Amino acid sequence: MAGIKSKKVDFFFNPNSIAVVGASPVPGKLSNVIMESLERSGFAGDIYPVNPNHGEVRGRRCYPSIRSIGVCVDVAVFSVPAPVTLPLLKEAGGSLRGAIIVSGGFSETGDGGKELEEKLRQEALSSGIRVIGPNCMGIYDTVSRVDTLFIPQERVRRPKKGRIAMLSQSGSLALTAMDEFYSLGIGISRVVSYGNRMDVNEADCLDFLADDEQTDVIFLYIESIEDGRRFVESASRASKKKTLMAWKVGKQKAGMEAARSHTGAIAGRYEVYRAAFKKAGIIEVSGYEEFLDACKAVSVFPRARGNRVMIITDGGGVGVSIADECAFAGLDAAPLPREKKEALKTIFPPYFTVSNPLDLTGSATDEWFKEALLRTMEGDFYDIAIVAALWGPPKLTDRLAELLSSVAKSLKKPVIICSTGGEYAKAKKPLFENAGLPVFLTPESAVRAACALAERKDWKYGGR
Amino acid sequence: MAGIKSKKVDFFFNPNSIAVVGASPVPGKLSNVIMESLERSGFAGDIYPVNPNHGEVRGRRCYPSIRSIGVCVDVAVFSVPAPVTLPLLKEAGGSLRGAIIVSGGFSETGDGGKELEEKLRQEALSSGIRVIGPNCMGIYDTVSRVDTLFIPQERVRRPKKGRIAMLSQSGSLALTAMDEFYSLGIGISRVVSYGNRMDVNEADCLDFLADDEQTDVIFLYIESIEDGRRFVESASRASKKKTLMAWKVGKQKAGMEAARSHTGAIAGRYEVYRAAFKKAGIIEVSGYEEFLDACKAVSVFPRARGNRVMIITDGGGVGVSIADECAFAGLDAAPLPREKKEALKTIFPPYFTVSNPLDLTGSATDEWFKEALLRTMEGDFYDIAIVAALWGPPKLTDRLAELLSSVAKSLKKPVIICSTGGEYAKAKKPLFENAGLPVFLTPESAVRAACALAERKDWKYGGR
Repeated sequence: MAGIKSKKVDFFFNPNSIAVVGASPVPGKLSNVIMESLERSGFAGDIYPVNPNHGEVRGRRCYPSIRSIGVCVDVAVFSVPAPVTLPLLKEAGGSLRGAIIVSGGFSETGDGGKELEEKLRQEALSSGIRVIGPNCMGIYDTVSRVDTLFIPQERVRRPKKGRIAMLSQSGSLALTAMDEFYSLGIGISRVVSYGNRMDVNEADCLDFLADDEQTDVIFLYIESIEDGRRFVESASRASKKKTLMAWKVGKQKAGMEAARSHTGAIAGRYEVYRAAFKKAGIIEVSGYEEFLDACKAVSVFPRARGNRVMIITDGGGVGVSIADECAFAGLDAAPLPREKKEALKTIFPPYFTVSNPLDLTGSATDEWFKEALLRTMEGDFYDIAIVAALWGPPKLTDRLAELLSSVAKSLKKPVIICSTGGEYAKAKKPLFENAGLPVFLTPESAVRAACALAERKDWKYGGR
Repeated sequence: MAGIKSKKVDFFFNPNSIAVVGASPVPGKLSNVIMESLERSGFAGDIYPVNPNHGEVRGRRCYPSIRSIGVCVDVAVFSVPAPVTLPLLKEAGGSLRGAIIVSGGFSETGDGGKELEEKLRQEALSSGIRVIGPNCMGIYDTVSRVDTLFIPQERVRRPKKGRIAMLSQSGSLALTAMDEFYSLGIGISRVVSYGNRMDVNEADCLDFLADDEQTDVIFLYIESIEDGRRFVESASRASKKKTLMAWKVGKQKAGMEAARSHTGAIAGRYEVYRAAFKKAGIIEVSGYEEFLDACKAVSVFPRARGNRVMIITDGGGVGVSIADECAFAGLDAAPLPREKKEALKTIFPPYFTVSNPLDLTGSATDEWFKEALLRTMEGDFYDIAIVAALWGPPKLTDRLAELLSSVAKSLKKPVIICSTGGEYAKAKKPLFENAGLPVFLTPESAVRAACALAERKDWKYGGR
């Protein structure tokens, strides 16, 4: 009988050996791509192709079955037609700890598939094999270097190593997010796409990630939760040690009605999810843009100590629109305290309106931006700075990024760069990013980033 | 005395001659850049440099004064220090129809500047010279080929000719918007940055644009309105012939308090502006992202006849999140009517869930997308389609864009392409754009575009 220990899913994130069941030597076949992904990600453990029809696959000896490998395999990725999965899993009993079943054709296809999945679940339970999937992408892990994705790296780029973990019911969302993360330079620790979730679910993964030293932030993409109580327990535990963020889709009536309800699931009304997130200490993001901006922000900056935002700009219109967005989002673009006003008036020309937003005008220089950031943010008046430097003022130079970056480091507070505009502004983006300051391209985007970092009672943006 | 006719500002948009007052032969000087902008934009009328200190500027004979040119000049751009403006304007009386005063140093700098501006206003009134500015960028006009911007084209790209006009109090916003429009491929008819608005205001420009055959859409960026009644009258007249959109900034309390109130202005509460917009038939956008997405949408698509949206995708997660955004924005992602369901079931595999959103799954083909779009959108069930094709499905090819474009043309309804993801997806973007279908990069962005096109009672996105 399986003890507490064996119920854990840790081994999925640190396997010594991986078998690919249904391995094929034909390039482009899913199982062949999976082996390629494992090889290219630099997985250092053993890789065993399994297929009775082949003696060798991709230069490796191919085994007729998992049992015939002769060792207890940690993880087997199943890429075979749905009906064949059950007998192959049965056969592996005693020789396998965990299975990732990427194949579709189960409960997502209707009653017949549902029956098949239930049989598979019973078999897994009796043999003690833990199962991720079916109908999933499996794992992308920059720590263990496991990559079970059946989409080639040319098609979906893999993000670099970082400290955000992602749990996703949807495989396509997981892929899209990874692809965007690569483009945005956001790092990942581990990604799990668990699809139909017949065994391993978000709570199992949260239990592991809560103690994972490689992860600071856990992001959940949720369509439904099956075991609400367990989810809240696991999430509450994890959120004491990590930053948890969730995006719940299917909020609107039509979507909810379309979603199937599972026994024991927190089904139905979105409000129930919101309450559960709040109880479990999860920060909710309301959509795709908040998701990306929040991940970009938390991957670089520490959490802020409050929600007070200082806005520094050289374009009046942009400054005011950032202030508008802050107000809408429940952030506090608080007026400058008198002592700071007095101090700033000694630095800048007399015709300056010294306020929040602080508009350095078309006469702005690199030094003005630096001084404005330092003087307003030092002390305990503001928690987050948003700096929107338009490149119109002729005295601005490329040194600006380095100067702002060094002030940001000394302040130990988030400094969010907002850069609107076309080609010229976009060409300057790498200056900031190379200096460790991610760039947000619209006022809304900068404020979404600030929201993800701010400590506050109500999250207005999220879960609108 | 000036008659009704001479009160019109039409001549600013079709001048035969332009003088640049304060012309300098020194490259980089504002007045030199302005002449360069006029030359490079291809202005076909006469350009007269004016400066008593030079005999020639940029290869043109330079005149000591406007009067000395010897003809009645249509427009003079003043790029001289604020205190010199008044005597120079006085001197030009009788030889000049309109002035664009780009110089700063007037009411925006405090009491002294305010006094100077009032004197200038009195002088303009008595001499009959209409004035745009001061403290503004002036005009960029793709019809008359007037470009008075003192920022070189390398720094801020000029958008192509199109049918959107833009009126902006903020010069920096006008520049940023033009730069973004260039990048996004959005065309412009005329842009006016009117700054301190001492004479010519948004109502004057609206009166001209209402009858402008080169303009279909008028976009207003508004910080404040000075003459509320006249604005509503002019806007109401214009909105009968054109699509009017406005973005009001300074919505939050802090911003409103900071804004100076002018006599006769609709000052104070944002709700008053909202009511005025509604009365005048103006569509409100709430921020920068809505502004850009709305302009991108209306620059290509006609207005839709209603707010019913059909969502077609090959990625379940993206489809559901678009449906969420539609619900939030007050668009109707209505369920498929039974007759359409029956028809679609004969085309697609039996395991398909035929619904709205319609998920074509990882087995999607170009033809499936085409058929799905055609069959769902024909007849009078949906007004707008949002098509979110993820590039994961291996059977999708580059032909997809052309196929969707030809269906869109036959339907005569907006077909909004939503393309999430990283490098691979972004590399496919030009396929759609070259086929006349603009691409929106997030579910939110696609829905903002749909909102700008939809005919509906309440604009929920705008003016949150």
